Amino acid sequence: MSARIPVAVLGATGAVGQAFVRQLTGHPWFVIAEVGASERSVGKRYADAARWLEGTLPAEVAALEVVPCTPDAIRSPIVFSALDSGVAGDAEPAFARAGRLVLSNAKNFRMADDVPLVIPEVNASHLALLASQQRVRGWSGAIVTNANCATTVMAAALAPLHEAFEVRQVLAVTMQAVSGAGYPGVASLDILGNVIPFINDEEPKIEQELGKLLGRTDGAAVHHADLVVSAHANRVPVEHGHTVCLSVGFARRPSVAEALHVLRSWTGDALVQGLPSAALPSLIVRDESDRPQPRRDVMSGRGMATVIGRVREDQLLHLRLVAMSHNVVRGAAGGSVLNAELLVSRGLVHRETGALQLATLSASTFARPESAA
Amino acid sequence: MSARIPVAVLGATGAVGQAFVRQLTGHPWFVIAEVGASERSVGKRYADAARWLEGTLPAEVAALEVVPCTPDAIRSPIVFSALDSGVAGDAEPAFARAGRLVLSNAKNFRMADDVPLVIPEVNASHLALLASQQRVRGWSGAIVTNANCATTVMAAALAPLHEAFEVRQVLAVTMQAVSGAGYPGVASLDILGNVIPFINDEEPKIEQELGKLLGRTDGAAVHHADLVVSAHANRVPVEHGHTVCLSVGFARRPSVAEALHVLRSWTGDALVQGLPSAALPSLIVRDESDRPQPRRDVMSGRGMATVIGRVREDQLLHLRLVAMSHNVVRGAAGGSVLNAELLVSRGLVHRETGALQLATLSASTFARPESAA
Amino acid sequence: MSARIPVAVLGATGAVGQAFVRQLTGHPWFVIAEVGASERSVGKRYADAARWLEGTLPAEVAALEVVPCTPDAIRSPIVFSALDSGVAGDAEPAFARAGRLVLSNAKNFRMADDVPLVIPEVNASHLALLASQQRVRGWSGAIVTNANCATTVMAAALAPLHEAFEVRQVLAVTMQAVSGAGYPGVASLDILGNVIPFINDEEPKIEQELGKLLGRTDGAAVHHADLVVSAHANRVPVEHGHTVCLSVGFARRPSVAEALHVLRSWTGDALVQGLPSAALPSLIVRDESDRPQPRRDVMSGRGMATVIGRVREDQLLHLRLVAMSHNVVRGAAGGSVLNAELLVSRGLVHRETGALQLATLSASTFARPESAA
Amino acid sequence: MSARIPVAVLGATGAVGQAFVRQLTGHPWFVIAEVGASERSVGKRYADAARWLEGTLPAEVAALEVVPCTPDAIRSPIVFSALDSGVAGDAEPAFARAGRLVLSNAKNFRMADDVPLVIPEVNASHLALLASQQRVRGWSGAIVTNANCATTVMAAALAPLHEAFEVRQVLAVTMQAVSGAGYPGVASLDILGNVIPFINDEEPKIEQELGKLLGRTDGAAVHHADLVVSAHANRVPVEHGHTVCLSVGFARRPSVAEALHVLRSWTGDALVQGLPSAALPSLIVRDESDRPQPRRDVMSGRGMATVIGRVREDQLLHLRLVAMSHNVVRGAAGGSVLNAELLVSRGLVHRETGALQLATLSASTFARPESAA
Repeated sequence: MSARIPVAVLGATGAVGQAFVRQLTGHPWFVIAEVGASERSVGKRYADAARWLEGTLPAEVAALEVVPCTPDAIRSPIVFSALDSGVAGDAEPAFARAGRLVLSNAKNFRMADDVPLVIPEVNASHLALLASQQRVRGWSGAIVTNANCATTVMAAALAPLHEAFEVRQVLAVTMQAVSGAGYPGVASLDILGNVIPFINDEEPKIEQELGKLLGRTDGAAVHHADLVVSAHANRVPVEHGHTVCLSVGFARRPSVAEALHVLRSWTGDALVQGLPSAALPSLIVRDESDRPQPRRDVMSGRGMATVIGRVREDQLLHLRLVAMSHNVVRGAAGGSVLNAELLVSRGLVHRETGALQLATLSASTFARPESAA
Repeated sequence: MSARIPVAVLGATGAVGQAFVRQLTGHPWFVIAEVGASERSVGKRYADAARWLEGTLPAEVAALEVVPCTPDAIRSPIVFSALDSGVAGDAEPAFARAGRLVLSNAKNFRMADDVPLVIPEVNASHLALLASQQRVRGWSGAIVTNANCATTVMAAALAPLHEAFEVRQVLAVTMQAVSGAGYPGVASLDILGNVIPFINDEEPKIEQELGKLLGRTDGAAVHHADLVVSAHANRVPVEHGHTVCLSVGFARRPSVAEALHVLRSWTGDALVQGLPSAALPSLIVRDESDRPQPRRDVMSGRGMATVIGRVREDQLLHLRLVAMSHNVVRGAAGGSVLNAELLVSRGLVHRETGALQLATLSASTFARPESAA
Repeated sequence: MSARIPVAVLGATGAVGQAFVRQLTGHPWFVIAEVGASERSVGKRYADAARWLEGTLPAEVAALEVVPCTPDAIRSPIVFSALDSGVAGDAEPAFARAGRLVLSNAKNFRMADDVPLVIPEVNASHLALLASQQRVRGWSGAIVTNANCATTVMAAALAPLHEAFEVRQVLAVTMQAVSGAGYPGVASLDILGNVIPFINDEEPKIEQELGKLLGRTDGAAVHHADLVVSAHANRVPVEHGHTVCLSVGFARRPSVAEALHVLRSWTGDALVQGLPSAALPSLIVRDESDRPQPRRDVMSGRGMATVIGRVREDQLLHLRLVAMSHNVVRGAAGGSVLNAELLVSRGLVHRETGALQLATLSASTFARPESAA
Repeated sequence: MSARIPVAVLGATGAVGQAFVRQLTGHPWFVIAEVGASERSVGKRYADAARWLEGTLPAEVAALEVVPCTPDAIRSPIVFSALDSGVAGDAEPAFARAGRLVLSNAKNFRMADDVPLVIPEVNASHLALLASQQRVRGWSGAIVTNANCATTVMAAALAPLHEAFEVRQVLAVTMQAVSGAGYPGVASLDILGNVIPFINDEEPKIEQELGKLLGRTDGAAVHHADLVVSAHANRVPVEHGHTVCLSVGFARRPSVAEALHVLRSWTGDALVQGLPSAALPSLIVRDESDRPQPRRDVMSGRGMATVIGRVREDQLLHLRLVAMSHNVVRGAAGGSVLNAELLVSRGLVHRETGALQLATLSASTFARPESAA
């Protein structure tokens, strides 16, 4: 593929926006053509508008002029949105109406019946909702969302177990990195040498999104998984990487050995195999007694893998385990880019123009390679 | 009371030993007469043997010569033991046989049927076991233990709820401070900006001790509370203060309002009221949405209070809450000293000689002042 | 003294404002009668306007209504100002014109010829400038400033050496706590596990203020000390306590022993001896090879002492040493309160009304008790 | 080059030893054939003997059996030594006598007249000492040392300025990462939220080594640079990356613009250009006011670059600046490997056998490519 599809990043100056810039720089299929941000930044060079947080600002993006986050100002067929929920509610549908594909990180549309909430390795088939979304809303474009960053860790870790044993009860205690709060985000006076046992609006998101992510779709709607989630969300003085302690109950109680076998032989990631942003394996089970650890494991699979450890029996429910992944890469920007890559690879987005072409959607579009065998 | 009882600290040079020195310096009833430590330190001045970690080393202790941890070398009637479990197993019974009262922080004897495992506000009445302990073991002295530092947080928070609604199920996820591992303890390369989702041997302690702490005694043995505990233990980059996220199920489901009322009106601490090391109240319920926090709340009640917050419904069990206390003060040295103070105040230890006098033990010894009314 | 002088705190909701509230709560001479803050907070209860950062908000202040920072709205004769330099430039003179005594932490007036820049132990005599300040400016009140928090550490450590050997050259490298930047101040994403080798506008302050602090006054102006200062300011992930590495050259080169003797026998603090906020000694020289350390030493003298260590020869200049003190207590709120206490104790402020009464000012007002002997 | 030279790592299980393993895994010229460690580890698989600290332990090294650090047990012609100074004093000469090339990180031989102390970009020509070393000591092998990790930062930053303006006075204040102390190294209780203003034996190393590194050689000895160094060494809670604040005086005072021009146009790294471990450029000057920062810049040039910032005038000496590099990569393992690569690339080590062949050494061996023009 010679030409790359022009894409835009909305909310490009914030922490997640910058993660999009890092994820998309040098991408083989996409090229950042436009960067959108708020009034304050419009008209400035990106290098002047963004306080660059990590690594080196790519030269080809540095020189772009920041434009408003409207479909008039931005012409790219694909827009990656790092907009806050405060503005995403109006801005993202405007782009969808204007025929663009929006890959959203905001919470606004995640729980809508006709909006896919997707982690490709977990529930790629939910993208089939897009046809009904266009129909229902009368859009020529579409919105695809990815999950809250803490929910993403859990869903990736539980998907194989759910497939095999049906998850019914989940008790999740998160220890979340400060980058999850954006920039400037958490004040150092609040978190140095401290734990904050509360993150605003986080527990409800975790409790609602997991059932949708692990649910099944008939193409028109998602039937949420029949499970109960109880979440405790904590902030800890870690830069990147959300760690989650999980106690899980199942419809069919697995032994630890069975659970480990399922986790290690999972083929959910077969569908994303070979995609530019995919980690292979996307799930890493570590044997050491004290892993995963965010500082040491967060860059596994270039930040796109989910690392699991300490799978053991639970006195109360059935199994306990620890899961961890990169909240900004896997849990935000990288997840959105992987969603876009999947749509391209499945033929739902034109490889050169970037135009949505949902007519090709069929029952087998998201069938796993293995099941074809 | 003019004269103070001479006491000894065993394992005096380590982190908990130093906490004993801080806790006992200027104590109105006790005076540190002897400090014991391992071979390596014997014969040195305490100031030279101990790498002092916090605040200023009290002058009256600095000059003491370190002696071996044997009842021959140490003559005090009361010994506070900060010994590691590796040596406590032999050393502590030797002192008990020699007629001394041992206040132990080691795990070795905590779960023995005839050894009280005591948090005074929670289960002072378990001290009645001492009479049977002397009988069974033929000791003229005795061993009293206090609980693991993470269990202590949980027991203090759950005791009022257990009394009112009977705790049946506890899911506990701890975020524990580095001081819990002693000194040098956790390497900075392991914990800076990191979470370690494992603490050796911690989860079993939590799961076993809680039932005994919340159990009832007939004087001869403890009938453990009928509850199931599942624990996930984590180390976080916090200096002092173990934070625990709890999901709890009860025999009788309380509303959040009922639970808060019980926690706020609890009188378990009436028995320790006025003891030199007691915090009043010993239980603090905070209203803010983001408390307790270890760095900000750990010194509540001079480190002896347990701070509770975020009492709310649980989707899975009945209630969720967060509890935190100082692992070295409340969870170790301060707890032992409070146990000793209680024995003195109840007349089981002679106020001047420090001798055990269990003959005075009766059914009303540990009756709460209120219940007398 | 039965009645206490009513005082106000300006900028009371910020980090330094809160430190004033802590410092003044329970003060034997002063009582917080009024709290002033910006438009946003005016009309709210203090408890609702301030996000309380440390310890427990005192009940008597919690209920105060926040008022605007103007001499009309605030009637107290003494105002402690934690205002930002952006507003202090107008607000503080307004109070001075209205006859109030302003104890300021802002940089605006520190370097003005007729404004005393005072650390009581170092240069109490500079307060004599107040008479000329009133004359020159036509104010019935006055402004007294205290120094930048990093300069304060250095001045307190160098004053005795300057008195004995005349400081000529100072190379200072600071490692400053995050609380020095206020709240929310430094973003955790910027400082966790990091060093930021720059603090905006900090180096010029250090380089200018030190000469004034160590200068002499004839009552009309300050003759700055004849010294050159070069500063490197760094931010480190420490909560409280600015640590400064100093290389110092003198007019007369002292040996290490001579320097230590001077530091240990210094009587500069005799004048503040017995004042409610004074630490005695105000200068602590530690012998250990690895002190002072901010986390361990910052609360020395209830946060009002300056801790010095590692006094040793310097290959390049004459001496090297390390100094550390609490940037919010010693370096800001506590310093201002100590300035006010000194004025009261010297009779320049009426003990009951709080009114300035500079007529009593004489040559001996700030003479050290010792020199009188 | 098809075959790779077999090499050994001495002290392979420690923090620097592990860094060697990372640096050498996948190396185009060298292959780890042997790993040596202390008695305790001998006979174990490397994977079992080493507590792996960072990233993933390479499979090809995991299976190696740990052998003793003697030339009998280890046959490789090139040995990279991460031995402590306690054992390096005997072990390293044993290898040199046995004809091996030792690349040492220990301090033992750094200051010996006939032992090159080398940072290739700074003083590659000092390697010419090896001929005289073999002659004087009667060795068929040789020892090459690299500098202390804090000195390395300074030397790399100052070399261009020394070349142009002759450095005469250096005042250095370091803020050093915990990894510089090895593993377990610094206790978390000592450094969390703290600064330790002392590192044992560090200041003398800095003060002695810099003059040798910046000195000139006639092939027989090194004429140390005529400069005075005063160092203050501090430990800060940073994982990797030593940051150094420098005030520098010169024989010829440069303007800031001249200094920046020299730093930016420096060609010292021309000699290492293209070597597998070399960063190009090896010196990075950043324009931002608040850089370098260890967490953000430490991996510049895959950890082999030195990052400089804040070049500005100094009131006291001539210039101030901040320099930072990776203490384990650039300052230890990577530096040693680069030394070995340079010897191979200059023909002093046989490309296939790894044998030393100093006969080819001539005046032009280390001439910079540019100077030939």
